[in-house]
Amino acid sequence: MEASFIAYLKGRVRALDGGRGDDRIEAGIGDDAAVLAPTGRWVTCVDQIIDGVDFRFGEHSPAEIGFKAVAINVSDVLAMGASPRTMLVTAAFPAADAVTIAGGVYDGIFEAAERFGVRLIGGDTTTYDGPLSLSVTLNGDFADFPAAEPWTRRGARVGDAVFVTGPVGGSILGRHLRPDPPVELVRRLRDDGVGVTAAIDVSDGLSLDLDRLCAASGVGVVIDRDAVPIHDDAHARSRQTGETAFRHAWSDGEDFELILAVAPEDARRVSDLSDGRARRLATTTARTGLWTDQGGRLIRLSPQGYVHDAGADGTPTGGGRPVPETEQDR
Amino acid sequence: MEASFIAYLKGRVRALDGGRGDDRIEAGIGDDAAVLAPTGRWVTCVDQIIDGVDFRFGEHSPAEIGFKAVAINVSDVLAMGASPRTMLVTAAFPAADAVTIAGGVYDGIFEAAERFGVRLIGGDTTTYDGPLSLSVTLNGDFADFPAAEPWTRRGARVGDAVFVTGPVGGSILGRHLRPDPPVELVRRLRDDGVGVTAAIDVSDGLSLDLDRLCAASGVGVVIDRDAVPIHDDAHARSRQTGETAFRHAWSDGEDFELILAVAPEDARRVSDLSDGRARRLATTTARTGLWTDQGGRLIRLSPQGYVHDAGADGTPTGGGRPVPETEQDR
Repeated sequence: MEASFIAYLKGRVRALDGGRGDDRIEAGIGDDAAVLAPTGRWVTCVDQIIDGVDFRFGEHSPAEIGFKAVAINVSDVLAMGASPRTMLVTAAFPAADAVTIAGGVYDGIFEAAERFGVRLIGGDTTTYDGPLSLSVTLNGDFADFPAAEPWTRRGARVGDAVFVTGPVGGSILGRHLRPDPPVELVRRLRDDGVGVTAAIDVSDGLSLDLDRLCAASGVGVVIDRDAVPIHDDAHARSRQTGETAFRHAWSDGEDFELILAVAPEDARRVSDLSDGRARRLATTTARTGLWTDQGGRLIRLSPQGYVHDAGADGTPTGGGRPVPETEQDR
Repeated sequence: MEASFIAYLKGRVRALDGGRGDDRIEAGIGDDAAVLAPTGRWVTCVDQIIDGVDFRFGEHSPAEIGFKAVAINVSDVLAMGASPRTMLVTAAFPAADAVTIAGGVYDGIFEAAERFGVRLIGGDTTTYDGPLSLSVTLNGDFADFPAAEPWTRRGARVGDAVFVTGPVGGSILGRHLRPDPPVELVRRLRDDGVGVTAAIDVSDGLSLDLDRLCAASGVGVVIDRDAVPIHDDAHARSRQTGETAFRHAWSDGEDFELILAVAPEDARRVSDLSDGRARRLATTTARTGLWTDQGGRLIRLSPQGYVHDAGADGTPTGGGRPVPETEQDR
């Protein structure tokens, strides 16, 4: 479907631009590669989503799937403290109903493009005898904040305040298909020069991603369990599963909020700039691991979440691991 | 296989670098996105290859498939006159034999990385119930030639000399799995400041890609049919098919040579810098279309090649289209 599809995409990209040009993009779809003229550093990442692994076609609409494929990558770019800018998309459509599915998928892709301010600059589309598969490469930059350093997972220091940018848990009830990564909050934090020392997005679960940030930074955290913002969906999910709502907030994946470590003197500004949505749930400490205070005694919490580790039959085994929720202080 | 595979990839990237750092890459695999610090403009492109569409698993080794997935994208970057630099790879492996296949595929990917001077900076790997699928995003830049403009398909002017950088046709006999895009020649042309006005890579067939370059530039070409460099494989293929070797050179795809339009005063240097491998096969003309001189009379040639256009059953229909090889001058 290459030639006609390129024409279709070109038309949609033009429509989306509303006739505006973009000085940073000198050549787009139609040449062998897109040419960009960035200012300073840029970031790039890629994530793919596939029917049967990351979603179930039939339960989820093509537009939702297209939207999600873009949004999860926007989340990664935001975790670096960058502004999402451009993307390339490869799509493989099941041959039987490729045209209908492709139309819906690109509806979702372009909706996400508009929502997050991202421009489609290249891609490759095919049909095949296989499940719907989308791979999105997303590029971001720091052009709007020239003095800004990229955020990484490695920069948290002892005594930093640790935030999550919104309530978590239970995303499987539907939110996981409409990720809404905090593009506006990141812009505000950058504009305001807030001292974010480390960041990661919550893709595999609050505790698992928090543990990764801590491990990369060489610190631990003391968590205020009562301060973890529990999403309504985590409560609803709790009624389905019999697990606690906290446990769903702690271990469910695909929230696509950010975990931010922040210099303590800037903690208040994070709350203010997020209009109270970002919640401080922990403080970093020199002792590595995840800890919580229980009656004046620190007990250790185990990270839990979706581990990308395929079993022999290809079924993800994460989430079902027999890890105790807490273990004794050692 | 995410966590262990990331560790494996990190190890291989380090081994490939031989401990060298790269100032342009500030953060690589392990953060949410890679950070790059480019000098000036850069280019980016993506192509995917899938078992059953672009190759046949079992006939072709995993390493060949991995190599090809990188090389076809290197070809696109070279067609822009840029230096290939970094890549991100998404891979989906059939669950049944994922580990064995993945090892072979990444052998080929890293072999191509070394061959073409490209560094792996990110990716995403999964297993699923589907055919082997690879999507490679390749980034290039002009850091080695700061004054250079990107090449596009649009810049050819009337009177330009048109080259193909090597013999074409019959790649299906095996060469299509070991594409060897002319990375060294592009470097020489850039170093020497040769006036390339337009470029495209031969992915879908000499005539089809030449026609695309001409259409984008708003020019035609008069082709010297005797000057088209016919690969030995095109002769071998001719003996199999009964078609002429010229026809295979004219219409077979996946050669991954470049077609270059060059200012006439620079034509000689292209021959010299390629050690005679690049062959001048045409001159651009104001009359649009592909033409050849037959007994003092211009006759029109039809572009033929692999058209990416899927039939209802997903089978590519290109190449088999009932297009006459030549039609009368109109």
